[in-house]
Amino acid sequence: MSGIELAVSTVIFALRPDAEGRLVLSLPLVRRIREPFEGRWALPGGAADAGESLADTAARKLAETTGLAPSYLEQLYAFGEPDRSPTGRVVSVVYWALVHGDEADRALEGENVAWFPADAHPALAFDHDLIVGYALWRLRTKLGYARIAHAFLGPTFTLAELRQVHELVLQKPLDPANFRRQIEASGAVVPTGERQTGGRHRPPKLYRYDTTIEPVDTGPLGAAGIR
Amino acid sequence: MSGIELAVSTVIFALRPDAEGRLVLSLPLVRRIREPFEGRWALPGGAADAGESLADTAARKLAETTGLAPSYLEQLYAFGEPDRSPTGRVVSVVYWALVHGDEADRALEGENVAWFPADAHPALAFDHDLIVGYALWRLRTKLGYARIAHAFLGPTFTLAELRQVHELVLQKPLDPANFRRQIEASGAVVPTGERQTGGRHRPPKLYRYDTTIEPVDTGPLGAAGIR
Repeated sequence: MSGIELAVSTVIFALRPDAEGRLVLSLPLVRRIREPFEGRWALPGGAADAGESLADTAARKLAETTGLAPSYLEQLYAFGEPDRSPTGRVVSVVYWALVHGDEADRALEGENVAWFPADAHPALAFDHDLIVGYALWRLRTKLGYARIAHAFLGPTFTLAELRQVHELVLQKPLDPANFRRQIEASGAVVPTGERQTGGRHRPPKLYRYDTTIEPVDTGPLGAAGIR
Repeated sequence: MSGIELAVSTVIFALRPDAEGRLVLSLPLVRRIREPFEGRWALPGGAADAGESLADTAARKLAETTGLAPSYLEQLYAFGEPDRSPTGRVVSVVYWALVHGDEADRALEGENVAWFPADAHPALAFDHDLIVGYALWRLRTKLGYARIAHAFLGPTFTLAELRQVHELVLQKPLDPANFRRQIEASGAVVPTGERQTGGRHRPPKLYRYDTTIEPVDTGPLGAAGIR
């Protein structure tokens, strides 16, 4: 044994309505109930388990602390600077996860579990501010070339819904006509032939990702799972 | 303590001449001198050290086993399936590294350290075949959008040298005129105003990467180091 403790933590993103009902890119945090950093907010996680894969531990800790099942879960990075914990050497293998909005609505909340805007959360314990910053950068980069928006949305979506995901994650308005042209030119989405149900005279068309095209970023390992 | 051992290993790539003098994308491997997998080749590495960052451990193990100092070192992935070692639970944080050709020439070699073609090495110990496959995929993907070719080449290079790196890594011939157009259109390289020294009547122009453009893939963490 090397005297190094191994932990697993997860940065979870979902689009959640704020007090005025506007959707905001948000993440759940857990308040620490013991030292070090007692009372500070931190990422959900805990010690690695000898009998479980790292991804399974990440998903289990997520379920235990927040009640959430992710629609996308991928390893982000192993953080291992010697001074990142004041009580001894801890290496944290960090995952990032996306959850659907309706799943996020079912999340546990309470005195010690709460959602915060991804760009406006309190200063976190340990090096978790750095970790959240890195996860946000990865999400924004990946949204540009990988098909992960549906992990916020579900299997079918309108182009307006897809554009809204991009706008909320990138935090800037996108021109609807330009967005439609870019998405259509990329060939990434295809019409399902159906329209959204609802009271409108001409409800918008539903699209899905074209599963016949390989996503560009699937390595031999792929993501831990897209469910 | 969780009963989990933490290890650090590195996949190192360099362009090395084969027996006929042709450059080949190659990696150094270390022969295991004890069980499990005694006699099988494996990636250089060893147990993590409680007082050192993971990247520092990766660089130190690299130097100890192969004598190499990398020009590029980046974390690849933390491999942690419960059954990946027959003698207990080991989580390996794996780095990948690139070394210049002249540095690779200085590498230690012997009965238990040798270079192999990246695509034609013996079956490796543990899950190291999977790890090398993932590192190769990362290298090939990254060569397309990030400025890592110079980690094989040094600070200045001719377009023919840069094309050769791409050809050797991607293992396919590239049309010189198309390659030149794509590289020039990308704006990634700029002429230094100098020409390669040598006996030729019109020696080729030297280029360098344009350091005023942010590489697209530098997250808040960046690579562990480009030296």
